[in-house]
Amino acid sequence: MAAPEAVILVGRKPATNYVIATVMQFNAGSKRVILKARGSAIARAVATAVMVRDRFMPGLVEIKEVKLMSDKIQAQGGKERYVAAIEIVLEKKS
Amino acid sequence: MAAPEAVILVGRKPATNYVIATVMQFNAGSKRVILKARGSAIARAVATAVMVRDRFMPGLVEIKEVKLMSDKIQAQGGKERYVAAIEIVLEKKS
Repeated sequence: MAAPEAVILVGRKPATNYVIATVMQFNAGSKRVILKARGSAIARAVATAVMVRDRFMPGLVEIKEVKLMSDKIQAQGGKERYVAAIEIVLEKKS
Repeated sequence: MAAPEAVILVGRKPATNYVIATVMQFNAGSKRVILKARGSAIARAVATAVMVRDRFMPGLVEIKEVKLMSDKIQAQGGKERYVAAIEIVLEKKS
């Protein structure tokens, strides 16, 4: 039995990898899956969420919340800089 | 006097261009600015929204709604394909 809530960090792999990971989490019993991404991976997180909702689990899963943030990161040379980030909460409909 | 609601299409230019366009719309009197983007420009729309809210107009503007969709587009050769899209509604606090 999976945890009721799973977090998936979306990075540089193809979006379909994250789609499969998300669907597997739901099928293992998770109620919510949270996709997190930063910078250019944001577009991939959005693509993942939309594919899961509209194509892989239509009618079963909804996008419950979308949070936009800026994360502080340590750039090379020790400088701090801000990068945009997203959190997408996918939830199984009951 | 600007329209109460403005739509900005986020494309391939640097995010700061869209930040400036958004801030100008609000300063011209718009109450809401809607950022729309598709595909890889989604990350730029998110960066724009976060920069406006946190750095350029802190305390003045909030992210009211974020919608994730898939848009059907006509690919080369007449095939249809789906691309992820985002709409971010920025609203002036009253």
